[in-house]
Amino acid sequence: MKTIGYAASAAGAPLAPFHFERRTLRPNDVAIDILYCGICHSDLHMARNDWGMSAYPLVPGHEIVGRVSAVGPQVARFKEGDRVAVGCMVDSCQRCDQCRKGEEQLCREGMTLTYASPDRITGELTQGGYSKHVVVREEFVLKVPDSLDISRAAPLLCAGITTYSPLRMWNVGPGSRVGVIGLGGLGHMAVKLAAGMGAHVTVLSRSHAKEADALALGADALLVSTDEEAMAEAASSLDLIIDTVPVKHALDPYLPLLDVDGTLVIVGQIGPIEAPSTVPLMFGRRRIAGSPIGGIRETQELLDFCGRRDILPDVETIRMDQVNEAFERLEKADVRYRFVIDMGSLPG
Amino acid sequence: MKTIGYAASAAGAPLAPFHFERRTLRPNDVAIDILYCGICHSDLHMARNDWGMSAYPLVPGHEIVGRVSAVGPQVARFKEGDRVAVGCMVDSCQRCDQCRKGEEQLCREGMTLTYASPDRITGELTQGGYSKHVVVREEFVLKVPDSLDISRAAPLLCAGITTYSPLRMWNVGPGSRVGVIGLGGLGHMAVKLAAGMGAHVTVLSRSHAKEADALALGADALLVSTDEEAMAEAASSLDLIIDTVPVKHALDPYLPLLDVDGTLVIVGQIGPIEAPSTVPLMFGRRRIAGSPIGGIRETQELLDFCGRRDILPDVETIRMDQVNEAFERLEKADVRYRFVIDMGSLPG
Repeated sequence: MKTIGYAASAAGAPLAPFHFERRTLRPNDVAIDILYCGICHSDLHMARNDWGMSAYPLVPGHEIVGRVSAVGPQVARFKEGDRVAVGCMVDSCQRCDQCRKGEEQLCREGMTLTYASPDRITGELTQGGYSKHVVVREEFVLKVPDSLDISRAAPLLCAGITTYSPLRMWNVGPGSRVGVIGLGGLGHMAVKLAAGMGAHVTVLSRSHAKEADALALGADALLVSTDEEAMAEAASSLDLIIDTVPVKHALDPYLPLLDVDGTLVIVGQIGPIEAPSTVPLMFGRRRIAGSPIGGIRETQELLDFCGRRDILPDVETIRMDQVNEAFERLEKADVRYRFVIDMGSLPG
Repeated sequence: MKTIGYAASAAGAPLAPFHFERRTLRPNDVAIDILYCGICHSDLHMARNDWGMSAYPLVPGHEIVGRVSAVGPQVARFKEGDRVAVGCMVDSCQRCDQCRKGEEQLCREGMTLTYASPDRITGELTQGGYSKHVVVREEFVLKVPDSLDISRAAPLLCAGITTYSPLRMWNVGPGSRVGVIGLGGLGHMAVKLAAGMGAHVTVLSRSHAKEADALALGADALLVSTDEEAMAEAASSLDLIIDTVPVKHALDPYLPLLDVDGTLVIVGQIGPIEAPSTVPLMFGRRRIAGSPIGGIRETQELLDFCGRRDILPDVETIRMDQVNEAFERLEKADVRYRFVIDMGSLPG
């Protein structure tokens, strides 16, 4: 199937229109007309080859929502016209203990990423959702509940599940005290989801500037991390911290905020963090953890949860030809809180 | 009560005989004739004021075993002649949630350390177990099971509980895969205890030099951490790592050894560690934690467990007047695996 997308032709090149082929449907494949695709900070990293794992031409995009246009003969769960979604992965071994547990993101053989990853059958590189169409095996296609506004749902597929998964893993619910560091795409979802689960949510920010925004998103409080007195008063007051900061940073100021056995979960920065002290870890039995997206079953659970609770990302919708400008603004954190590309703006 | 011990008179001064008073028994106090006291690496740090919290004269020692010589009128659980033990703490608030849970080491008001800590009633500094006698409130006195060789039991009170507590917290039992980094006082106890719980135990060491020792202690395998090929083969093969290394070190080589949701628990180094990467944390949902000693209830559980299973530290027994030489050897890790002072060697 012929399609068009926006691709980077080399590391750091601006995205430009790119004509390419989607594969002919395999028996278990679903063909999707993409309606919207979110812009994730990792799209920017990948377009630039910041992680040394990119291949070009590269069509980014792993926050995909759309409608089924066709299905392979073995597809049972989807039919033409269904509202569906695809996230960060499009395949895994499906046999290992992690896949059998529904944790395909931790597949022992490695998941197949939605873009820049070799297809498990042909070895051809996958291409992402900044495009009109995509073909994905049934097991990695999600249902978008009818009640969910599809024009805003796309960021749930990465920003949403990346924050939902640790909230679930660490048993957040009514009575939980959750801190969120960083109020970008991931952080604003962490606030909405934790609040939706009934937790008391504190946003950690370098100043009071984002206080009104934080409260509007559903946070109960904003704690200014540069205010040493306020930070000392808040010692041992949180059960879980979701750390969405996407650059190298220090954990030491935040760890003492955790209560005994509390955990700081890193979901933003992929790479080095500043050297921590073991003191707040030992004297409080605190923990540092990392968490990568979530499994397919959990992602469906998230979509259903958001459908029931009417929880949606705050998005700024753009045209496909605004993507390079959006990348520039993203780098300056100039977006509240996630760009979504209206794929109807892409002719062809 | 008059007693004699060995004290540092100033930071870094050699320990020398020191005559001092133990308090008159309060109604809930137990007076103990000390038979043996273990030498913990932290005794060395405290004698030198490495952590900036020492006060002099300072009598170290928090691995204490002995016999009850007298009890206050309200003491119900002990009588003269009982074999007893005292560990790293001698008091706590006894009212907060942590104390009520039996986690006095995490007391909200801070535990009272066995030495160099102000007594909660008089403010007078506590003095440790390198002495003939000690007086401790009943709640912090432990029973030494009859089956346990009291001449070797002392290191259970710190090295033992410090490794036992995380093994219990992270549910080690038959089928668990436990790694131990460092084969000193703490590490050798971690091996014995984890093996005693039925775990498969791997010692991580920089060379094969300690292989026979590790296996003799009950380990199933030794993995050479400088052998990159062997380390890569062992990826994702451990559920829990007990990290007993007492100096600044890197965690990055060890984290990939953990399976999904596995935890590396720091029990040795109090202070900075080298800057870790978040990559092995995120892509494996691995965790780093710290753990400080254990509560009184758990320490009693450990003593009872060791009594039932005949698990004892490997010790080198010394005279009190050999303590300074022992400190020097300890610094060079020249002991298998813990010095214990025979307090019968101290006249008076």
